[in-house]
Formats: sequence, structure tokens, C-alpha cells
Amino acid sequence: MSLAFIILAAGKGTRMASDLPKVLHPVAQAPLLAHAMRTAAALNPEVTVVVAGHGAEQVREAVDGVDPEARLALQRAQLGTAHAVDQAQAAMEGFSGDVIVLYGDTPFIRPGTLRAMLAARRGGADVAVLGFEAAEPGRYGRLITRGDRLERIVEARDATEAELAVRLCNSGVICADRALLFELIAQVGNDNAAEEYYLTDIVALANGAGRRCVAVTCDEAETLGINSRAELATAEAVWQARRRDEAMREGTTLIAPETVHFAFDTVLGRDVEIEPNVVFGPGVTVQARARLRAFSHLEGCHVGPGAVIGPYARLRPGTRIGQHARIGNFVEIKAADIAEGAKVNHLSYVGDAEVGAGANIGAGTITCNYDGVMKHRTRIGAGAFIGSNAALVAPVSVGAEAMVAAGSTITGDVPDGALALARGKQSNKPGLARRLRARLMDLKAKAAGN
Amino acid sequence: MSLAFIILAAGKGTRMASDLPKVLHPVAQAPLLAHAMRTAAALNPEVTVVVAGHGAEQVREAVDGVDPEARLALQRAQLGTAHAVDQAQAAMEGFSGDVIVLYGDTPFIRPGTLRAMLAARRGGADVAVLGFEAAEPGRYGRLITRGDRLERIVEARDATEAELAVRLCNSGVICADRALLFELIAQVGNDNAAEEYYLTDIVALANGAGRRCVAVTCDEAETLGINSRAELATAEAVWQARRRDEAMREGTTLIAPETVHFAFDTVLGRDVEIEPNVVFGPGVTVQARARLRAFSHLEGCHVGPGAVIGPYARLRPGTRIGQHARIGNFVEIKAADIAEGAKVNHLSYVGDAEVGAGANIGAGTITCNYDGVMKHRTRIGAGAFIGSNAALVAPVSVGAEAMVAAGSTITGDVPDGALALARGKQSNKPGLARRLRARLMDLKAKAAGN
Amino acid sequence: MSLAFIILAAGKGTRMASDLPKVLHPVAQAPLLAHAMRTAAALNPEVTVVVAGHGAEQVREAVDGVDPEARLALQRAQLGTAHAVDQAQAAMEGFSGDVIVLYGDTPFIRPGTLRAMLAARRGGADVAVLGFEAAEPGRYGRLITRGDRLERIVEARDATEAELAVRLCNSGVICADRALLFELIAQVGNDNAAEEYYLTDIVALANGAGRRCVAVTCDEAETLGINSRAELATAEAVWQARRRDEAMREGTTLIAPETVHFAFDTVLGRDVEIEPNVVFGPGVTVQARARLRAFSHLEGCHVGPGAVIGPYARLRPGTRIGQHARIGNFVEIKAADIAEGAKVNHLSYVGDAEVGAGANIGAGTITCNYDGVMKHRTRIGAGAFIGSNAALVAPVSVGAEAMVAAGSTITGDVPDGALALARGKQSNKPGLARRLRARLMDLKAKAAGN
Repeated sequence: MSLAFIILAAGKGTRMASDLPKVLHPVAQAPLLAHAMRTAAALNPEVTVVVAGHGAEQVREAVDGVDPEARLALQRAQLGTAHAVDQAQAAMEGFSGDVIVLYGDTPFIRPGTLRAMLAARRGGADVAVLGFEAAEPGRYGRLITRGDRLERIVEARDATEAELAVRLCNSGVICADRALLFELIAQVGNDNAAEEYYLTDIVALANGAGRRCVAVTCDEAETLGINSRAELATAEAVWQARRRDEAMREGTTLIAPETVHFAFDTVLGRDVEIEPNVVFGPGVTVQARARLRAFSHLEGCHVGPGAVIGPYARLRPGTRIGQHARIGNFVEIKAADIAEGAKVNHLSYVGDAEVGAGANIGAGTITCNYDGVMKHRTRIGAGAFIGSNAALVAPVSVGAEAMVAAGSTITGDVPDGALALARGKQSNKPGLARRLRARLMDLKAKAAGN
Repeated sequence: MSLAFIILAAGKGTRMASDLPKVLHPVAQAPLLAHAMRTAAALNPEVTVVVAGHGAEQVREAVDGVDPEARLALQRAQLGTAHAVDQAQAAMEGFSGDVIVLYGDTPFIRPGTLRAMLAARRGGADVAVLGFEAAEPGRYGRLITRGDRLERIVEARDATEAELAVRLCNSGVICADRALLFELIAQVGNDNAAEEYYLTDIVALANGAGRRCVAVTCDEAETLGINSRAELATAEAVWQARRRDEAMREGTTLIAPETVHFAFDTVLGRDVEIEPNVVFGPGVTVQARARLRAFSHLEGCHVGPGAVIGPYARLRPGTRIGQHARIGNFVEIKAADIAEGAKVNHLSYVGDAEVGAGANIGAGTITCNYDGVMKHRTRIGAGAFIGSNAALVAPVSVGAEAMVAAGSTITGDVPDGALALARGKQSNKPGLARRLRARLMDLKAKAAGN
Repeated sequence: MSLAFIILAAGKGTRMASDLPKVLHPVAQAPLLAHAMRTAAALNPEVTVVVAGHGAEQVREAVDGVDPEARLALQRAQLGTAHAVDQAQAAMEGFSGDVIVLYGDTPFIRPGTLRAMLAARRGGADVAVLGFEAAEPGRYGRLITRGDRLERIVEARDATEAELAVRLCNSGVICADRALLFELIAQVGNDNAAEEYYLTDIVALANGAGRRCVAVTCDEAETLGINSRAELATAEAVWQARRRDEAMREGTTLIAPETVHFAFDTVLGRDVEIEPNVVFGPGVTVQARARLRAFSHLEGCHVGPGAVIGPYARLRPGTRIGQHARIGNFVEIKAADIAEGAKVNHLSYVGDAEVGAGANIGAGTITCNYDGVMKHRTRIGAGAFIGSNAALVAPVSVGAEAMVAAGSTITGDVPDGALALARGKQSNKPGLARRLRARLMDLKAKAAGN
């Protein structure tokens, strides 16, 4: 049978105190919305519709970045969740099957939970609602069940004492057949204090129509929704704590786990060692036994087995570090391929470059990849030796086993095995340093005297 | 009516195990004493007297740094709090009005709390004492009240069982009319185990004289005093946690709040994004939508709207970063003005400089601002392009839209639109790298053989 | 009387999900095993035997690194703790006296605890077993005592309800006379579910033979054993928290203690100030009043009194920083002696070097210590001034009070007081930058057009 998702992402999120739409605030460096979309994608739906409203243009861009096949619906005025779902109707033209409604600000629901809802639906329920046992039910809506049937959803403010004692609360996530869902929504009214159309009302309507509704439950932690930056920070902390535990279970050494920040898609091999204060951007893969030393920052890069990175290394997108290669302190690598066993140990910028196997890039080496208008590539051959403080003005090639003398600015290609020099000749002026210093001291004294 | 503060700051703080006077240990990068002084200043007092003792010279310097109009009194021997307050008498010559006694090691009392004390005093109380409901009253002095009157302050060791059950405890902060305060202090004796003159004794004396004393209460957290480095670290943690929450409420994104360390005076605009591990020194303002990337360190600087700083950027005092300018990794900026849209992206030191709008400073660029005796300025025009690994020997100017070739050491001014070169010519020695390496290997083998 | 230790270190540690033997995983940058060995060493034993099994070669190397006099025994098959201890017999040939059995994965037992066991043994007990009051006894073996005698150790799965109520649990650490220990072990059987020989069985055997067994107790925290990476991370956190508290008690300022990571052997003087995010490798000594600024990383180095390090400074092994010297941001120092008052403030690599008192090393200075085959030394005299962006090609000497001009590559020695220049002459090409930029823009447009 077919499955579709409707993900509600129209809210402004006033309490975020931000110009960015709420669902685009990030957890683990992916927008909240992307987390919900990834969860949905895990069930291989036929159709995914994101309902945008505030900041719809920005939301569209984010949606395209995650899943270009996802469709966008627009909710021009925020008239409630039932109204929001209703906006997705046109975008689902031609689809028939089950629909699950998710929320773009609720990033932690597990695919397994959604599969359980789907199983309940396909096992005979007309509407399945996701609930959770709340530690502090407080203002949550309560799921009122009788036997295995969900009879009503009662808002806390409308609940009786007996109903308030119920701890099974409403997450808002709902699963129903497409046709039934929109049929029920069409009957939802807005006769309430906020004059909004609430999706939860479809449960009473379905029961009224003799339909069978059930509650499926999950951990409260899965239903954590984000409404403020403090909640966002808490969500980030929860996500990171889980990922760190998972990494350790799978064989990564984290010396100070609380100081390591992963991205949503970080991939780590066995016996990778991560020292304190390492930050991952998106798109990083680190292979077995690589060592990430303190204060390193990695984005969009691949680190080969046994490589040693840092401390204070920054790997930027498009970087590949070969097996047993070494990237040292205060080194930035961008869009570069550093082959097996090569070393860039100190204070260097290597960008738009290929560095051959076993090459040694001296301290302070800079690839000059930008001429102010365009970027160019630098090629350094296997076994080459670049002396310290060299500048390599791209496009340029240094051949295999070639050498560049320290302090040289290289503008032309260097053949294999050749030595290139490009620097001034040294001259020593005896006694001049002493005389110069005396003169400067004198000048300073005069300046102070005036 | 007039108001004066007496801030007690004479203690040694033996448990700090430090040569620095206790009140000068920092929280949020300001001395404890400065926090108390800032709280006092919020009430616009006519006179502030700091009573110093241990390390009085260092205390004087700190006081001058915070408020040059504050007066200093000296307590030569530490004979108790009443004695300490008494030392302030001479420095208050000519002042009449209310006096509040604060403590230099108690940084968290809120101005509003002091205003409440003042209101109590001006509403008819002769003496107002600040108390708090203690979670664990333990060894605190207890405030013994009857109706709305404060009758006595009982030290824990002298208290009856009934008195020990009282949870309203003494913070030590007192407000009274100047004349009455010193009149009462003159009657305080030192007939106790420590042979000290206790300020708290004035409550019993005032009651004995038919004066009206009251207790004003605040949160226990406000009364936190610092006596050890562990308590100092706790105070720092409390301060940082509050500031992080406040920042998030006001619209700053903190991805990992627990890794960001603010200073007492950090100012942040809306939608500023702060990545993990960012440290603020004093005097930093960051405008809206600026992004502070991981591992950045800012002191005494101004960051314009939409600017991107870091990762691994260090902004030192006197730095101004213009709108949408970018400061990248391993870059230090000191006393420099980086105009709108300019870029200093990699491994550079820009000090005592002006960089024009849209200029691009290549990787590894160094402004040579120090000649061993004096500092000089570097001026780089709008739209200029400084090639990588260049050294600019100040004083020097590079004109608008000028270029400096990579690897050049520039000692003379470069006109607008000109290209400056200052580097050696490249020569390639075919095969020499291979021969050189063979010779070095040979030498090494011989050295190892000997 | 003589004392010997047997330290069991043969386990694989399957739950570590690692190719490294469990006892070699580090806490505070020393292998777990080293912590147990250091605790043992504090009692000056005559003999220490480490029983290795999985990864015996790696374990041997680690043992040699900590105590070359320790002996190694091999347990080829892991048949239980009694069997493991038995393997140590041959290595103890000729020793008579008391034996304490420790565990290589249990790093926190205090020397004082072991001394208490030894005192119990020498005060008349034949076997002393280390127990602890468990907060959650759960699956721990229970120590069943009568009066002051230890009668049995009961595994949780074999315990009666009454025995399960006992909270005194077994740590596994045992002390007995050598001859008796091995005599008892010879009688231990493997008639249990796992078919293993359990050391704990010797207590029942000893009691059966009329021997006197006693329990000595310690804090539960001391008995923390490591079985997974998550437990390893917890152990690291516990260790760090203790060390931070100790540092503060002894007079170190830690602004954000939770962000500072010490090594097992870090030594700190009074009034040392440590900013947030500082990481210590092994072998660091920091003298009084030195200041370690944020994001610094120190290994195997000595920092003199009043020196200022960082932010973003990396000190590598073999570095000595003199009194009041300053090492600034993005600076790496390796195997170098930086004398009193010298400054290396920005973006430099100083390796295999001596820098004289009061010398000033400009921003971007690189010592070129490696020629691709061998390392060479650089010597810089007292009061010398190295201009920014200089490269010093070792072996090379710069004399006292000499100067090196900015941007120079120095390959020959510079005499005392001389000024050395080695750079190209500047030439300005009027208007060329503008023409060049126009041409590049043109090229780019053409490239885009194709």
C-alpha cells in the first residue's frame, strides 16, 4: 500500500525571537525540518508534502536541499493544524493510500514509531494517533481511551478532574487514509477561543461516524517539540548525548565526549580516537584508527585510515586525506586531495590542490589559489618537498620528488626531481642592527618629548 | 534623598590560596568587587566608599578602573565588619542620607533588591537588613522577626532550637541613615570569641534604642559569597548559565551554550549565531546576524551586522569589523578597522591597520607593525588585493584597487591601481633535488654509522 | 616485610569494541594499567608482576614504559582470575612475603586503601579482601561476614534473599601471604557455569582450612572498573573532576574548570591562571603566576613563572619557556628553549631552536628545521629581532642584538648586532593591477560563456 507524509512547517515561532522560520533552526547542523523529513524518508513514502507559511521561500530552499522530490504547499494564513493539513490536498492530487501528519519542529520521532502507527492503521484502525505517557501532563491534550479504542482528545483546559488524571497525552501525529482524512477535516469547525481549526478534532468526528480510532504510544522524548532557543539548545544537547553514546558503543574513543560536537551525518570507523574539543560540520567520514586531535574542525571531508589530524586542524569541504597522512596545527585544507602518507604539519593553507603520496609540505606553505577573480589548482607530486614559508602561485605544478627551497614564491612549474629557488640573496650589514635600534630609540624619545 | 554605598573589600581570602586579594578574583572577567560596584552604581549613589585592607594598592587600582569617583578607605587591621564600616566615616565627610553596606565578595545581588531595601528604609524603617530563605540554614545567622519587625540577628552557634528552626538568614547587607549607622556602630563591642566588632550587632542596639528594624528578602542565589576557588568557579558557572539563557531569550543562537563563555559586558544583536567554543573577553559588541564560528576569541572589538568570524579567529582590542566582512581561520586582528565586505580569510596577522571596503587579504599576510621599538600603521585601500604570504612593512600604504603579488615584502607605498612586486626570480635546477636528497641520505647514514 | 603485586591485565574487553587491549585504553592520558601500576608503586613493592593475555606484546610495551622492572607473566587462555593469578607464580620465584592482587582495568584504588589491607593482613588476618558498600549492590558478589571475620563471598545469582540484602560487595582485590595464596589457588575448581577458576573461591577454602579472612572497606568510587567506552569516558570525567578540584584547592585559577583537561602528571604552581579550553598532554610543569590562555595545548614542556601562553598556543615536547616569556596565538613551539622575556607572539613555528633572553620573534616566522632528511637547530641570540614572515633555514645562528629584515629567508649566520636582509626589491607597476583585474574578469566571463 502507498504512503504519504504531510509535514507542517508554516509556523513563525515567535518565541525563537528570530527572523529565521522556526523549522529552519538547526539541530546537529541540519534544520529541524530536515530531521522530520529524514524520518519520513526512512519509510519510503510515495509523496511528501511540506506545508510552508512564514518564510516560505527559505523553507522551499531547505526542502529542496534535503529532498528535491518533496512537494510544497502554502498556508497563507495560520488558521490551525486542520487548515494547514487541508492546504496539502492539491499537492497530493492522484495519491491514494495512508497519510501520516508530522511536524517540522519535532525532530526526534523514530521511524519505528511511525511504522507502528502504520501497522495499527493497516491492522484495522481508521485513525491512529501517536500518544505518550507524560511525566508532567500539564497542559498537553489528553487521549481518552476505552478498551483499545481512542474515543476523544480533550484539551487540558476543557478536561474534567478525571480526564486531567490521564497521563496519556497527544503528540499531534496522526495517521489515516487520505480520503477519510480530508473528509473529516472538511467537517472540523473553528468554534473555539482561538478561532482555529484543530486537527485533533477529527478523532471525535471519526468516532461520531462510527470509525475506529486507536492510540499508538512512544517515549515522551521522541515528541519533544521546539518553541524557543532554549528548547533548541536542549534538543541539540539531547541529540549530541545520544550520538556520543552511540559512537562509543560502536568503538570510537571519545576522551571527553561532552566536548565533541557531531553533525547529523558524521560517519566514524572503529578505533577512531577523538580528543577534546572537536567539531564536525556536515558531510564528514572518518575511517578506522584515524586520530582527530584536540581543537580540530572538520566539514565535508573524508579522512583515511590511520590519518592524524590536528590539533587545530581545519578540514573544509572537498578535502580527502589519505591513509596515514598527517595534517598538523594551524593548517587549513580546502578542496584538496592529500595522498597517502603526505604531511602538512604546520601553519599552512592548502586549497584547490593535489598533494602526492609521501610529499612533505613545510611550515607556513601557502597555495595561492585565488587571483582576485578566479580559483586555480596546485599540483604537488609524490615525494616532493616544499620548503617552509613557500608560496605556490596557482595554476602551478611541482613535480614528483622535486624540491622547493624555503621562502620561495613559485610561479612556474617545477619539473620532477628539480630544485626550485625563488628568493632574494642574503646580505649582512655589520653593526647596522645596533645603530638602527639606537636611532629608533632616539626617535621614540623625541616623539615622547614632543 | 541621597544615597551612599560602603563596600567592604578588606579581606585576604585565605581559602583562595592566592597572592591576589579575594575581591579581585574575577567572575565573567570582572573582579568580584566590580560586580558589587556595578550593582551599587545602578542606584546612582552620591558617594561610594570601598574599604580596602589586604592588597589595598591593587584594590585601589581596580576601583579606579571601574569608577574613578569611588573613594577608598583603609582598614589596617581586620577587626570585624562594624570596624570596617567605621573606617569609611572620614571618606563620607559631608554626606548625609542613607547608606547601604555591601560586600566585595558577593557579586550577585540585584539592583532591584537594593531598591526594595531603600524603599523599606524610606517607608519608615530605621534599619533594613537583607535576608533570604536558606535551603540549608546551617551556620548562617538567623533573622528573628516579630510581626513586621526584625528583633535580633542570632548567630547559629548562640541560637536556641526554636531559633535554629528559622530559615530566614542574614546576608549581611544593611541599609540605614548615615548618622544612625555610625552612632550604632560606635556602641558595638567585641566581647566575643573572635574579639571582632560585628555589624550585625547594630540590629539589637537599634531595637534597644527603640528604633524600628525590618528584614527585606531576596533569593538565596543573590547572596552567594565567594570564599574559595571552587566557589569562584561555581559563581562563574552560575553567571555564565544566566547570561546564556538571557542571550537565547533575546534571540541569539547558541548551538552548544555550555561551551560559550561571555564577559560581563558582552553585547549581542538579534540572530547572532555562536558556534561551540567561543570565548569573549571584555568590551565586545556583536551586531545582528553576525556569525561567530567555533573556537573564536574576541576581546574589546566591534563586529558589524552579518560579518562572519572564524573558526579560529582572534579579534583583539581596538578591532572593528565592518558589515559582511569575513575573518577566517588562524587570523589575528589587532587595533584594526576592517571595512565592509573585506576579507581576511586565512593565517594572517593584521595589526594597527585600516583595510578598505571589499579588500581581499591573501592567506599568510602579515602586517609588520613593530620595528622593535615603535608600532606603525598599515593602510590598505578599498578593493585592494594582497597576494598570499605578503609582508607589509609599516608605515606603509597600499592604494585602492592596487595589487600586491604573492610572496612580496612591501616596504614602500603602492599607488592606487598599481601592482607591486617584491620577490626573487624563480630558477629551476634540473635533477638537483634528487642529487641533494641522495647526498643528505648519505650524510645521515654516515652520521648514524659513526 | 616484603610486598609483591600481581596485576591482572589479560582481558580482551569485548565491550570496548576495540583492537586495543582493554587495559591500554587511557584515562588522563595514561593507560588504565599504568594507573594500577602507579598505585602499586606507591607502596614500594619488591616485585610487581603483570599478567598479560590479549595483546600481550602491546601490554609488555606499556608495562616497560611505566616500570621497566615490572615482570610479565602470560595467561594464554582466559580461564578465570584464579588461573590468571596462578600464571604469576614463576615470575615470583624467590619472593616470599605478602601479595596483593590488583586489576589493570580498575584505576582508582588509593594507596591508602592498600596500606589498610596490608595492615589488616599483618595484624593477623590470613586473607584480606577489599569490599565496598554499594549504592546499588545488584549483581556484585556479597561479602558475608560474621563479627570481624569474612566467611564467604557469594555471587549474586547464588545468594539467598538475606544475602542479597547485604550491601558490602566484593571488589576482587585480595591480599595474602604468597605461599598461602598459591596453596589456596591450587585447590580452586572450575565447577561452575562458566567453567572458570574464580579467585574469590579462596575465601571459602581459607575459612575451611581454619584460616582467618577479613574484609577491608573503601569508597565505592575507588572500585570503579572499566568495561566499555562509556565507562571509560565516565572514569575520565571522574578523574578530571577530582584533579580540577585539587588544582583549585592548591591555588590554581580555573575560570571554567569543566573545560580544562589535565594529564595524569600535570604539575601546577600557585596562582597559575588557566582560561577556558586548555588541554594538557603528559609531562607538563607550569610555574607560579604563569597564565595559560584559552585554546592552548601543552605537552612535555616546562613553563616558567609569570610566562603568558596563548590563546591558541601549542607547546610540544622538549619545550622550555622562560620566566615572563610570551607565546602568542597560532604559535607552535617544539623542542625549543625560549629564554626569559622572549616573545613569539603570532603565527610562528619555532622548532629545534634556542631563543635568547628578550629576543622578539616577528609574526609568521618559521624555523626551517627539516631538510627532508634530517633536523637541524636554529640559534637566536639575546635581544635579537626577527622581522615578520622571516624563514630561518637551519642550521643557522642569528647573533645577539642582531636583526633580520621582514620577509627575509636567512640561510647563513648573522653576526651579533648585524642586520640581515634577504628579499627581493620592490617595484611598482602603475595601473597594472587595474588592467590585470580587467583581463581576469574578461577571461572569467569567456570561460563562463563557453
